[in-house]
Amino acid sequence: MLEREKVLRDPVHDHIYIQHQVILDLINTKEFQRLRRIKQLGTTSSTFHGAEHSRFSHSVGVYEITRRICDLFERNYPSKEPSDGLWDDSERLVALCAALLHDVGHGAYSHTFEHIFSTNHEEMTQKIITDQSTEINAVLREVSPAFPEKVASVINKTYSNPQVVQMISSKLDADRMDYLLRDSYFTGTHYGTFDLTRILRVMRPYEGGIVFDKTGMHAVEDYIISRFQMYQQIYFHPVSRSMEVILSHLLKRAKDLYLKNELEDGFAKNYLEPFFNEEFTLGDYLRLDDGVLNTCFESWRYSKDRILRDFAIRFLDRHPLKSMLYDSKTASISLDNLKELVSNCGYNADYYTGTNNSFDLPYKYDKANIKLLEKNGDLVELSNVSALVGALTNKSLGDERFFFPKEMLEEESQSEIFKCYYDEFLKHIKNDRII
Amino acid sequence: MLEREKVLRDPVHDHIYIQHQVILDLINTKEFQRLRRIKQLGTTSSTFHGAEHSRFSHSVGVYEITRRICDLFERNYPSKEPSDGLWDDSERLVALCAALLHDVGHGAYSHTFEHIFSTNHEEMTQKIITDQSTEINAVLREVSPAFPEKVASVINKTYSNPQVVQMISSKLDADRMDYLLRDSYFTGTHYGTFDLTRILRVMRPYEGGIVFDKTGMHAVEDYIISRFQMYQQIYFHPVSRSMEVILSHLLKRAKDLYLKNELEDGFAKNYLEPFFNEEFTLGDYLRLDDGVLNTCFESWRYSKDRILRDFAIRFLDRHPLKSMLYDSKTASISLDNLKELVSNCGYNADYYTGTNNSFDLPYKYDKANIKLLEKNGDLVELSNVSALVGALTNKSLGDERFFFPKEMLEEESQSEIFKCYYDEFLKHIKNDRII
Amino acid sequence: MLEREKVLRDPVHDHIYIQHQVILDLINTKEFQRLRRIKQLGTTSSTFHGAEHSRFSHSVGVYEITRRICDLFERNYPSKEPSDGLWDDSERLVALCAALLHDVGHGAYSHTFEHIFSTNHEEMTQKIITDQSTEINAVLREVSPAFPEKVASVINKTYSNPQVVQMISSKLDADRMDYLLRDSYFTGTHYGTFDLTRILRVMRPYEGGIVFDKTGMHAVEDYIISRFQMYQQIYFHPVSRSMEVILSHLLKRAKDLYLKNELEDGFAKNYLEPFFNEEFTLGDYLRLDDGVLNTCFESWRYSKDRILRDFAIRFLDRHPLKSMLYDSKTASISLDNLKELVSNCGYNADYYTGTNNSFDLPYKYDKANIKLLEKNGDLVELSNVSALVGALTNKSLGDERFFFPKEMLEEESQSEIFKCYYDEFLKHIKNDRII
Amino acid sequence: MLEREKVLRDPVHDHIYIQHQVILDLINTKEFQRLRRIKQLGTTSSTFHGAEHSRFSHSVGVYEITRRICDLFERNYPSKEPSDGLWDDSERLVALCAALLHDVGHGAYSHTFEHIFSTNHEEMTQKIITDQSTEINAVLREVSPAFPEKVASVINKTYSNPQVVQMISSKLDADRMDYLLRDSYFTGTHYGTFDLTRILRVMRPYEGGIVFDKTGMHAVEDYIISRFQMYQQIYFHPVSRSMEVILSHLLKRAKDLYLKNELEDGFAKNYLEPFFNEEFTLGDYLRLDDGVLNTCFESWRYSKDRILRDFAIRFLDRHPLKSMLYDSKTASISLDNLKELVSNCGYNADYYTGTNNSFDLPYKYDKANIKLLEKNGDLVELSNVSALVGALTNKSLGDERFFFPKEMLEEESQSEIFKCYYDEFLKHIKNDRII
Repeated sequence: MLEREKVLRDPVHDHIYIQHQVILDLINTKEFQRLRRIKQLGTTSSTFHGAEHSRFSHSVGVYEITRRICDLFERNYPSKEPSDGLWDDSERLVALCAALLHDVGHGAYSHTFEHIFSTNHEEMTQKIITDQSTEINAVLREVSPAFPEKVASVINKTYSNPQVVQMISSKLDADRMDYLLRDSYFTGTHYGTFDLTRILRVMRPYEGGIVFDKTGMHAVEDYIISRFQMYQQIYFHPVSRSMEVILSHLLKRAKDLYLKNELEDGFAKNYLEPFFNEEFTLGDYLRLDDGVLNTCFESWRYSKDRILRDFAIRFLDRHPLKSMLYDSKTASISLDNLKELVSNCGYNADYYTGTNNSFDLPYKYDKANIKLLEKNGDLVELSNVSALVGALTNKSLGDERFFFPKEMLEEESQSEIFKCYYDEFLKHIKNDRII
Repeated sequence: MLEREKVLRDPVHDHIYIQHQVILDLINTKEFQRLRRIKQLGTTSSTFHGAEHSRFSHSVGVYEITRRICDLFERNYPSKEPSDGLWDDSERLVALCAALLHDVGHGAYSHTFEHIFSTNHEEMTQKIITDQSTEINAVLREVSPAFPEKVASVINKTYSNPQVVQMISSKLDADRMDYLLRDSYFTGTHYGTFDLTRILRVMRPYEGGIVFDKTGMHAVEDYIISRFQMYQQIYFHPVSRSMEVILSHLLKRAKDLYLKNELEDGFAKNYLEPFFNEEFTLGDYLRLDDGVLNTCFESWRYSKDRILRDFAIRFLDRHPLKSMLYDSKTASISLDNLKELVSNCGYNADYYTGTNNSFDLPYKYDKANIKLLEKNGDLVELSNVSALVGALTNKSLGDERFFFPKEMLEEESQSEIFKCYYDEFLKHIKNDRII
Repeated sequence: MLEREKVLRDPVHDHIYIQHQVILDLINTKEFQRLRRIKQLGTTSSTFHGAEHSRFSHSVGVYEITRRICDLFERNYPSKEPSDGLWDDSERLVALCAALLHDVGHGAYSHTFEHIFSTNHEEMTQKIITDQSTEINAVLREVSPAFPEKVASVINKTYSNPQVVQMISSKLDADRMDYLLRDSYFTGTHYGTFDLTRILRVMRPYEGGIVFDKTGMHAVEDYIISRFQMYQQIYFHPVSRSMEVILSHLLKRAKDLYLKNELEDGFAKNYLEPFFNEEFTLGDYLRLDDGVLNTCFESWRYSKDRILRDFAIRFLDRHPLKSMLYDSKTASISLDNLKELVSNCGYNADYYTGTNNSFDLPYKYDKANIKLLEKNGDLVELSNVSALVGALTNKSLGDERFFFPKEMLEEESQSEIFKCYYDEFLKHIKNDRII
Repeated sequence: MLEREKVLRDPVHDHIYIQHQVILDLINTKEFQRLRRIKQLGTTSSTFHGAEHSRFSHSVGVYEITRRICDLFERNYPSKEPSDGLWDDSERLVALCAALLHDVGHGAYSHTFEHIFSTNHEEMTQKIITDQSTEINAVLREVSPAFPEKVASVINKTYSNPQVVQMISSKLDADRMDYLLRDSYFTGTHYGTFDLTRILRVMRPYEGGIVFDKTGMHAVEDYIISRFQMYQQIYFHPVSRSMEVILSHLLKRAKDLYLKNELEDGFAKNYLEPFFNEEFTLGDYLRLDDGVLNTCFESWRYSKDRILRDFAIRFLDRHPLKSMLYDSKTASISLDNLKELVSNCGYNADYYTGTNNSFDLPYKYDKANIKLLEKNGDLVELSNVSALVGALTNKSLGDERFFFPKEMLEEESQSEIFKCYYDEFLKHIKNDRII
């Protein structure tokens, strides 16, 4: 314990209270500081310009919510004897460390990057915590030699105490609560707002993990809906997804060129070579951040390759592709036609068209359900008592989009030669949807 | 005018309303999009982790406040004949463009960068607007050939209509109002909060520019105090200034090495060479952003030069120097002694010590005073009627700090050999102040 | 129009803009000022102590939202020829007056009062507007002799222009939007928060009234859910309903005594006599407000009648009855038993027990559906495209509660003689529900 | 201690945590519940319509801030031995009770009422706590026979532990902190907002009471300025003061009539008679609340006395008097003239004119100064180190206003006979100020 607690100022939680030297030391490691240079929401800031917050700020937020849960549990439900299903406060430190570090393996534009280069941020998180080469591992080892593995096991959900695991990862955990509130705050929308203090008040430890007092049912319901709304309105925004498609095709183009030995030498190649080859070290991985990748793209503005150059410019200067909705039925009929029309207009359709499916299961009915506690100790499952959550249960909500150059929609074509293709293209579209 | 207005979602102003094609086109230029990659507050985010917002978001915010002022003036004080001192709405577009572009010449970590490399973001702003090579200039020229110069003249305050000039730059302008509110929001503090809608309501055009209805005196006063508080509590925070000192010494070290021909070849040297030589083109300048500079520093983590390496690591991994207050009296007696002690402990004092003076004049009494309008048309000057503003007028408030390695304060020295220097060092300090 | 607009400061809308002399004059009438003395949420403030806001503040809020809708419609969808389905701004004044006055007939604790005395606040609203004795009528008549009837017809939904009617009363109108935001703000909960500016942006006039751009579907959905949450969590709160039961039984007792000629003479009798007799004038009605009723109750603290006295004290000093959930199945079996047990313990069960059913239809599928506008002009109905709204459609959500003295639950009975009844009573209850 | 803490939902503090049975019981007394029927800001809600919050909500707010201070002191500065100047947590209950009850003696429209009837809310507070007839006294006596006196002594500042006294009443206490935040919230202005959590963090117990860590100097400064702004912009608002003048003259008229035996019999006379005679019991006092007084006024709408009637109507229907600023210099010359002119126009100047002086000392330099704690334990006084506070120290800020019927300013007089008086009246006025 620190002699006197320290605080970080945080716009979401007002203050974040640091009470252990270990937590302070973890924050000061280079692996954790690196999270300052990785945006939490990647390309979303191209749509919601306020959303420039980093994974650093989310990580300390998850820590803070976990700390408050521990405080509340310790104050109201302290364990009196082993296996009484109440809270054992000697678990606090491992919970706090796991909360703080749960995302430490994230890289720049993780989602897209992983897809192209087969990296995996969850594996990297485990490695950063358990590999003796890292500063984080060194800090954790000072607690005890086995401590790094213990923290890592909470994050990969194999830890023995389900209360600790569920604080950090479950259908209603500190991670999700922080990102909904934080992403709402920074985008400037309010869809992700729910009643955090009320939810904390109705949370309770039990032998199987964490449950919620039934009197708080509507607050839990409100959280589920907020999460659903954030997915539909923020995370699945078509323009951000378009920028993701561009990023993905840009990285793919670079990789394709590299594999054909056509990528120019230089800085960008040096940084990315281990990933093109899918043989990278932890050190290679940790060197990358948003700024490094953007700098690679900046250097490709001047590439000899027309496509690489164009996609670098599109990404940096924000020239999104246009998109239309489709579904499995219209896809089989129309997508190939549309790609061909794009191709006819002189675009390489492998790069200049693309699809993106974004679906979320707002509430999945499985063993890890949210459970409500009746007065007499009975547990009831949330979707069984909430009409609203019931309506969303096991429903995969989202959409599928086809991306293409916005020139295809030009009504007054400047190039007479493509006019027939444009006209044909438009016939496939009604109400922003492919028919 | 756009057929239908477009909006950007903004956390400070809720929505930003785009009503002209020109504004939309300006936002979509590469020079403006580049502002997304430059943080508004530079090293402040190392202290207030929420403050990761970009100059892009501030720029559209200044645009929006200016737009509201124009709306209000047009609705309540429309000019009926030339020189009646009321608002001529044909000035709207030039005002909006100037508001949007007033900071477009800012570079990465401008403050520090300019100091080391003698660049000047105000000159760059003028150039980006008036140089025919830029996308921004091309958009503005479509309005009229003289339009770029007109917009530039508003920003450099030579434009003929003082109302337009004072909207963008004066003691109470759209620029300052946006950054106070925005920096408050993103830091998560509330010192910068003042009553924007009230101030907009009491703003009025007159022949000499803009004045404020006297009934709004306390709202104006509140704004002055908010600005003062932001300077004292946020902008002058010792840790952010420490990170600035580190950045400054890092760039200085690189320049010193370059000039001695000792800087390693590579990416960083290529990007910065024009600045080391103080012979750079607009293109050289526009390639730089926070990510590019950070990537240079990342590459210097592995430099052969011990000092360059250490400062790169200090900057990226956030290892600030410690600081103490001093004043002119104590400086002359103690600073040299302290530097020597630091030197004795094995540090190169040219880099490992430094000073930073941060002072702000919360309200300067000069010709550009804030004026209040009496009912009968008389003007009175703010500091003459506000006791609070009077108290701050012409007072330069802030402090001077001496920076040094935190090891100098180690109470239980691990290296017996430096103990005498540490003890001596401590004798110069009382209550975080050099004596 | 006022030469210069006036503003009211409002915590929900920041400022409320008054631009017409008529609106200012209406606010200054005695009938409208009287709304300052009537709480918007009646007994809810006994649960959520912040909810002390008045019907005055809600009424000006509805006015303000309506004003913004008119502004938006005038700016973006101005009618060019009769019956083009766009917005005819000559309707603005009638819309604003109707918005401001829509609740002017509300009396003190309307809900409960009406139930006991067969008054009707909607009828009173019509009367206050159209009866020549009122100050409101006089103000409206200055616009034109037919204007009062016109305003009244908007409120009772017989006015010819459906756009005007639907602004004020429909499934998504200025009334509901204001009360959700306002009740959220003053209770200090956030369930009622939705994205007002986004909804205003997607609202559109059409020949049949008002529709919403389909791109705003999730914002509309969010509003429906917020309303649902406010009902479940705030408006249906058991303790507020208990206070309503107490109020209702208190008024009923007074009436019963009066009709039996047993009510003491005095101030309270004078004020309420017209209502006991169900023969009251508009003047009688307008004299009542929360303070007058509470003062009647205050005088009954000293009544000879034990029940009247006890209920007056319970209401003023906030001693709620306890309640349990029941449903039609358990009601038929248990309620009579429970009443008898209460009776056995010495309480007059006619007053000391009661039931309250609170149900809300979050979204009713009928002709007045919320419609969304596709790009090509097609209209689609909300519940057909929103899974969430679909789940709530035509579902009556709420609960039924049985109220009784909390002494019935005493575990350690102080009065041995009632112990058997208490024990018996408890057998009917499980998990706060009657079984 | 309660087995499980209870909460009240509060818009300012989110939740208010009740952890002791005594606190719960105090809240449930009739004397405390009565505070729900007394508005915190009296006539201010006639200007800021949101400001309808009650003394109940402020009282629980002061309790909550005090509770947090105790928590913080207990966590960080627990006393280890008697008189070590640290926090002795056995003082917690007396601190909490005093905080909760500090305003319990307030009556309806206290400020004005006291002025006319020589009542004193501070004396009443002492009495309610210590008189054995009250429910509050009974609850407190259950703690110990001496406890009521102990609580009362904290409130009247004679209690031995200065830390407890200063928590509740000092220049920076829980009382002021709550009312600034609360009045800001409910008026919907933001002038009263300051950084509560920061101030709580820098508060520290010492042997002489409470001091503030010097690092928090700007936060304390910000609080002083916020308080100043609230006085100037909210509490001293001319229209609220006008309504206070009306209320005062209304009560005075009733008293004058009563003393001349000309006040009608009835309800109002009964309630107020003890006060007209200045011989009232605690019971008489506790029967009054805002609603009772307003009901008295309602009954006077129909009085035979023209002045009583008119002032009752003015107060209930909100017809303020107009006002102009004056100062001692202009007063001696003009006020008598102006009164005579008002008199000439047919008004009884004793009632239809009046003056109101509202001055506040934002920071008084006296023994009870705010002290800042240096690192080495030295104390420095706030106004000595803060330029801003220095500027306000010992300055009495506010203004003096003369009130009169708004008809005196009529430019186009409808009554030709008074025109000369109106014209003469106007000559005394310039820029809303008497000259």
